[in-house]
Amino acid sequence: MTASKAVDDLMQAFQKLPGVGARTAQRMVFQLLSRNRENALRIANALQYAAENVQHCKMCNNFSESSTCSICRSSNRDRKLLCVVETPADLASFESAGFYNGLYYVLMGRISPFDGLGPKELPIEALLKRLCEDDVQEVILATNSTAEGDATADYLAELLEKNEFKTTRLARGLPVGGELEYLDRGTLSEAFQRRITT
Amino acid sequence: MTASKAVDDLMQAFQKLPGVGARTAQRMVFQLLSRNRENALRIANALQYAAENVQHCKMCNNFSESSTCSICRSSNRDRKLLCVVETPADLASFESAGFYNGLYYVLMGRISPFDGLGPKELPIEALLKRLCEDDVQEVILATNSTAEGDATADYLAELLEKNEFKTTRLARGLPVGGELEYLDRGTLSEAFQRRITT
Repeated sequence: MTASKAVDDLMQAFQKLPGVGARTAQRMVFQLLSRNRENALRIANALQYAAENVQHCKMCNNFSESSTCSICRSSNRDRKLLCVVETPADLASFESAGFYNGLYYVLMGRISPFDGLGPKELPIEALLKRLCEDDVQEVILATNSTAEGDATADYLAELLEKNEFKTTRLARGLPVGGELEYLDRGTLSEAFQRRITT
Repeated sequence: MTASKAVDDLMQAFQKLPGVGARTAQRMVFQLLSRNRENALRIANALQYAAENVQHCKMCNNFSESSTCSICRSSNRDRKLLCVVETPADLASFESAGFYNGLYYVLMGRISPFDGLGPKELPIEALLKRLCEDDVQEVILATNSTAEGDATADYLAELLEKNEFKTTRLARGLPVGGELEYLDRGTLSEAFQRRITT
């Protein structure tokens, strides 16, 4: 509670951001209003513009201002590879790592019965349709290594193989720089069972 | 880097918020755009409104939409007490603690030679003018217990006492719930030297 309703409203609004509680919201608001009015307006404008103009790419579901995103439109991409990820954040991880040059398909979620999300709630029909129309030769199932991510990949692998598409999954094992001493049991066990002949 | 300039711009803008790095900004932006468009617009509007309409109270410098803030206007406040704080956040701490019923004066900073802030950069002339006009009987110097906060309070105490205003400072000592075992040396030493006769 401050003496200004506009300030209180703004602190309330900021608290809807992930990871922002009352104290952090207050710090953000006071800093923006104390010495950063221009920046406050810049954020407000960028937010309004994005909220009103960013849509989902009709090919891959990634965020895009145009109906087809710049990755799907690019002529420099290997159109024979399609990497299926759960979220735009996962796509951004691949892009910032910079080694992958194929296309993507963003599920915008995962199979998650607890959240009422089954295969029908995900754009899997559209994925199949796209695979039938395009000349994709390998579908890389790059869901998270969690129970829900694995279930999603299992479901997709079965469905796509039934339709005779080649599917692959990300390798499992030691993370780069990982020390055995500090590794969780599950990863160590997977790394052992999937050991590679040298 | 995502495939949308609007998304990238928004992530850049969010990174100007205190405590928000690249990863947090991405998480905020993706969450707002994935399932929270209405909230994105709500934040944008609250931010724009606040940036354009929140000014500083002409009596106490606190944030206010009107030229005089609701605290300074209130007839329920004890106008004989004036609490001098560094920032609106400090004022908010007093207000949410709820025990203080006097008025405030916000310095919007502290004497900080490293940041090029001397007494002349703070609204100290205006504080003196206000004290001469109003019937304040006690000025509580509630600056932070830091080197700069203390220097500011020392400067103000000397100035105000020279002008024959009564000044007080916040007490120093053990924080409530503080355990001696974990207390820093400085606080323990202050608490010992300022020990109270029982």
